[in-house]
Amino acid sequence: MLIVMDKKATESEIKVVVTAVEAKGYTARPIPGGDRVSIGVLYNKGAVDTSLFIGYPGVKDVVPVTRPYKLVSREFQSEDTLVKVGNVTIGNGHFAIVAGPCAVESERQALTIAALVKESGATLFRGGAFKPRTSPYSFQGLGEDGLKILARVREETGLPVVTEVMDDPTFDLVEEYADVIQIGTRNMQNFSLLRRAGRARKPIFLKRGMAATIDEWLMAAEYILEGGNSQVILCERGVRTFAHHSRNTLDLSAVPVIRKESHLPIVIDPSHAAGRRDQVIPLSRAAAAVGAQGVMVEVHHTPEEALSDGAQSLYPKQFHDLCRQVMAIYNV
Amino acid sequence: MLIVMDKKATESEIKVVVTAVEAKGYTARPIPGGDRVSIGVLYNKGAVDTSLFIGYPGVKDVVPVTRPYKLVSREFQSEDTLVKVGNVTIGNGHFAIVAGPCAVESERQALTIAALVKESGATLFRGGAFKPRTSPYSFQGLGEDGLKILARVREETGLPVVTEVMDDPTFDLVEEYADVIQIGTRNMQNFSLLRRAGRARKPIFLKRGMAATIDEWLMAAEYILEGGNSQVILCERGVRTFAHHSRNTLDLSAVPVIRKESHLPIVIDPSHAAGRRDQVIPLSRAAAAVGAQGVMVEVHHTPEEALSDGAQSLYPKQFHDLCRQVMAIYNV
Amino acid sequence: MLIVMDKKATESEIKVVVTAVEAKGYTARPIPGGDRVSIGVLYNKGAVDTSLFIGYPGVKDVVPVTRPYKLVSREFQSEDTLVKVGNVTIGNGHFAIVAGPCAVESERQALTIAALVKESGATLFRGGAFKPRTSPYSFQGLGEDGLKILARVREETGLPVVTEVMDDPTFDLVEEYADVIQIGTRNMQNFSLLRRAGRARKPIFLKRGMAATIDEWLMAAEYILEGGNSQVILCERGVRTFAHHSRNTLDLSAVPVIRKESHLPIVIDPSHAAGRRDQVIPLSRAAAAVGAQGVMVEVHHTPEEALSDGAQSLYPKQFHDLCRQVMAIYNV
Amino acid sequence: MLIVMDKKATESEIKVVVTAVEAKGYTARPIPGGDRVSIGVLYNKGAVDTSLFIGYPGVKDVVPVTRPYKLVSREFQSEDTLVKVGNVTIGNGHFAIVAGPCAVESERQALTIAALVKESGATLFRGGAFKPRTSPYSFQGLGEDGLKILARVREETGLPVVTEVMDDPTFDLVEEYADVIQIGTRNMQNFSLLRRAGRARKPIFLKRGMAATIDEWLMAAEYILEGGNSQVILCERGVRTFAHHSRNTLDLSAVPVIRKESHLPIVIDPSHAAGRRDQVIPLSRAAAAVGAQGVMVEVHHTPEEALSDGAQSLYPKQFHDLCRQVMAIYNV
Repeated sequence: MLIVMDKKATESEIKVVVTAVEAKGYTARPIPGGDRVSIGVLYNKGAVDTSLFIGYPGVKDVVPVTRPYKLVSREFQSEDTLVKVGNVTIGNGHFAIVAGPCAVESERQALTIAALVKESGATLFRGGAFKPRTSPYSFQGLGEDGLKILARVREETGLPVVTEVMDDPTFDLVEEYADVIQIGTRNMQNFSLLRRAGRARKPIFLKRGMAATIDEWLMAAEYILEGGNSQVILCERGVRTFAHHSRNTLDLSAVPVIRKESHLPIVIDPSHAAGRRDQVIPLSRAAAAVGAQGVMVEVHHTPEEALSDGAQSLYPKQFHDLCRQVMAIYNV
Repeated sequence: MLIVMDKKATESEIKVVVTAVEAKGYTARPIPGGDRVSIGVLYNKGAVDTSLFIGYPGVKDVVPVTRPYKLVSREFQSEDTLVKVGNVTIGNGHFAIVAGPCAVESERQALTIAALVKESGATLFRGGAFKPRTSPYSFQGLGEDGLKILARVREETGLPVVTEVMDDPTFDLVEEYADVIQIGTRNMQNFSLLRRAGRARKPIFLKRGMAATIDEWLMAAEYILEGGNSQVILCERGVRTFAHHSRNTLDLSAVPVIRKESHLPIVIDPSHAAGRRDQVIPLSRAAAAVGAQGVMVEVHHTPEEALSDGAQSLYPKQFHDLCRQVMAIYNV
Repeated sequence: MLIVMDKKATESEIKVVVTAVEAKGYTARPIPGGDRVSIGVLYNKGAVDTSLFIGYPGVKDVVPVTRPYKLVSREFQSEDTLVKVGNVTIGNGHFAIVAGPCAVESERQALTIAALVKESGATLFRGGAFKPRTSPYSFQGLGEDGLKILARVREETGLPVVTEVMDDPTFDLVEEYADVIQIGTRNMQNFSLLRRAGRARKPIFLKRGMAATIDEWLMAAEYILEGGNSQVILCERGVRTFAHHSRNTLDLSAVPVIRKESHLPIVIDPSHAAGRRDQVIPLSRAAAAVGAQGVMVEVHHTPEEALSDGAQSLYPKQFHDLCRQVMAIYNV
Repeated sequence: MLIVMDKKATESEIKVVVTAVEAKGYTARPIPGGDRVSIGVLYNKGAVDTSLFIGYPGVKDVVPVTRPYKLVSREFQSEDTLVKVGNVTIGNGHFAIVAGPCAVESERQALTIAALVKESGATLFRGGAFKPRTSPYSFQGLGEDGLKILARVREETGLPVVTEVMDDPTFDLVEEYADVIQIGTRNMQNFSLLRRAGRARKPIFLKRGMAATIDEWLMAAEYILEGGNSQVILCERGVRTFAHHSRNTLDLSAVPVIRKESHLPIVIDPSHAAGRRDQVIPLSRAAAAVGAQGVMVEVHHTPEEALSDGAQSLYPKQFHDLCRQVMAIYNV
């Protein structure tokens, strides 16, 4: 961290800041420049809270230097993390295709879709049993019945299943049935849930918050690793911007940044980013091209009858084309 | 809702959409225009999911018309909601000043600050016992010990206390000690927590999510009212934008919009919006001027020693000036 | 356009609005719904200004329905526009690779880079002679001397050249030398410049404004087509969001939207979006995959000595790899 | 500027960077920290382009420290700039109320509105003669006829007039008639126009770009001051965010930041920020409270007949109330 002093800061103001830094146990090193002094803060373990020094007289600005994350960083672990789910591996050259309906609606619906997506090339099945919905009046998912249907899907097809957990009281239940536990975008900074995920014995699929910086996202993953669970898959699903031609703006530049900064695998969810079917194939192609290690796509055999998010669900035929294209692009 | 058809949509495409609308139990009314047909969707209770119709052949666009919220809307209840906390009333002409430290650090700290802010004009005391922190390595609050200190503050000063709840397992505990229960910005769409808050017997202080639209924020409040708790205070605390000269961008235009759309009181938190002390007084003045029904401000007797958010905490002397100014402005 | 009335709007308020709509020469069609009336505005040519009706008593909301653009829309012209520059065609299956330095610095620099990029596969050369710079103290480009160097590059290599125009007084000059005239992101709504571009006899390369919606961008192109010049290439170069790990956030979902809404070709500029070299190849791959019709990339033989934007310029070797990869991906 | 090296950067990589910094004429000072080295760049005049060093092997990050602006900064001139227009002074305790229609539509319209706003307390008159419009099909202003009407308004009422300039060819004309020359939000980085404004003999009213940072805005002003014109008024008019309940999000935190960083006066335009009448009075109150030195408000005697932006124009009676309230608040 660097503390930048005003041009007119006095010697004694500088001294007060130096003393304050050292009172916190760090080393302060004043760096006289052309027309102002800056003070380097050194020998800190992890990031220092910039707000600690911003209010002192004579301080113009405080500039963070060190990244706040540790266990998730590539500086800490240089090899890619491989996430293993049954026979499936995610990360480092293994491109995952996660597909299925937004919500599990019935055993027949789930099995029908699962058979179709498996045939096309999906390696994991997705489906929500507990659904976070903006409105209390919308369909909230089948709950435990949905989880049981997911278990049936796994038995029938052999596909591992990914499903979302929404809170602490239902975490044990979800952990019992799921192969991969998803934490949704609205819960990315639900720190109690992250701590519980750190104690889980299943891999965590951590979606990026709708307005989260890369640092905040990696710090959310840090909670999970710090709790003892190092099997984390990151998922970019669009961020909130002024643009409204897609539901959210898919931030594909996050992929090279995450791959440089962290050893965790990253997967793209084009369905929730777009919010409309006609953008899903182009964005999936882009995901494979940009270096992501998988895509998560919503597919429904009769999207016009889906109980949620029908507009963004692909028809099975479209998904079939998608699989063929993304694998070809990924291999370029 | 209005379904806008392509200029070239055929009669039979229009018919299919009309049939689909009516299959959902709504009334479809085609409206022939200059060069295209639109289809009005009528007699729906509450908002219709626009995604239901966006994928049909010949459909160009689907435009929502009705607002999704109901119980929180001024169309539903035209008089302002008054929130009562002990002797304090919030809403409809009663300007609330909520003040205290970011986190409760010790009994002595809390009592010292409480005495100071009460003397200056604060009507409620704030202080965090459970702290949501971006980093797992930061100070996480005193937990139940913090709640006990808040109870002491209330006994000593008579000020009702506002404190944050982070999850379901600790909700009963927080509800036992707090006079007003805060749900933080990162939990605004933690729907399990909102459902629990709907069953609480204490008023809820609901912060706007960092990237939440007004509709989403009011829908979060709708969860609480729908659960049976109509004592909800909304709190605007800045939204995430490209601008970085303040930590978040305080969106004061939310105030006239909320006051028009809803009967719930709205309070401004300039401390978290700004993230730095020198913006807190100007923004508090603006809050009083724009028509908000209160401010929530962080104050610390020795901010440079605060365990969290020291940079945005006012000195007691500054808070004293703030109280005088906001009351004078509010009365213009 | 749809005018949504309050639930409590009176008959006479509705009548006033209907009269006002018809006074503007449109047809007003009241649509009684479940609990409120909406009024359709019909037979308008082009979009109606929503602000005309928003202030009337009893009006709750005004919802635009028709898109504001006309000549640029695919509804107006269903076949793709092909832009021809010498032997090069852009659009409809012809993938353009535009490459060169940010700024023309000297004849030697320009010729060196041009030879390198041509060999790797570039089809057009780019280079700035007039440079829009945030600071008045930064290098502003070589001006006319830069244009002459570009002409030399064209003679030597046969590559058509793309260069930026900044204002009316220098437009004739740029038009004389350039094969394609670029309008930069900061001038996307410089309407005087757009009108002048409408009279130009050379194709226009129109960058999206840093915070422009798709509608605004297409309306900027509409100015040019309306002026008589239908040879317009759109260029997405990243938009401004809260995220700061790239200089701007590349919005690749703009590609399928533009291709659906308009007949104009769209090209991606990953260099300005990223602002740093290590994201340029991944984002170029994504551009080819998502369906863009070209990329514009900054390349420099000695980027560490570049007078502007060196950090985002590729080394020639990297550009060579890029060309190979994007062409392979584009052909999937 | 601080160059942060990788933890694993070698001695020779550090040496290469130090040499590169010194080759540019700066001083490089390596600062060894706990587990990495940073290199301070010193004795630079003005900001150093961070991109110069970001691509070197072993460089992890480059952190700017010095602000890029000079002449506009309060470090350069500590006293407030006073802008004088006829008998009116703006800045340092003189609160300006600029009012009038969006566009000059006729002599009668302009004189009617001018008489009304003067009586209520306006100190300057605004009205557009050249109008930047998103659509080429919208009313573009009366041009020189509009300027002549503005001159008539000044003669009749004694109010100085503010009007917008859009381009170089019409600058002389606007300069001849206007008392204050406005540069609009879409032209904030039209650097040719800024250079011309630097040679103008009239004060410049510089609106913030819709997505401009404070630094970019001040750098645009720097162009004008650097050109020789130090009479610049800054105007915040809302920025583009994800929120859509107002047309733009008014960023009032810009006011304390500008007042701290710069000596130039700052005025708020609530009309364009809101885009709808019912937010204009609350936001004007907030502007006066937050410490701005004026407001610019659209007023029309018959807004429902206005040729542009009628929805955001106040009725004269509302403007009368606004003046009374903002002056009372400003004086608290």
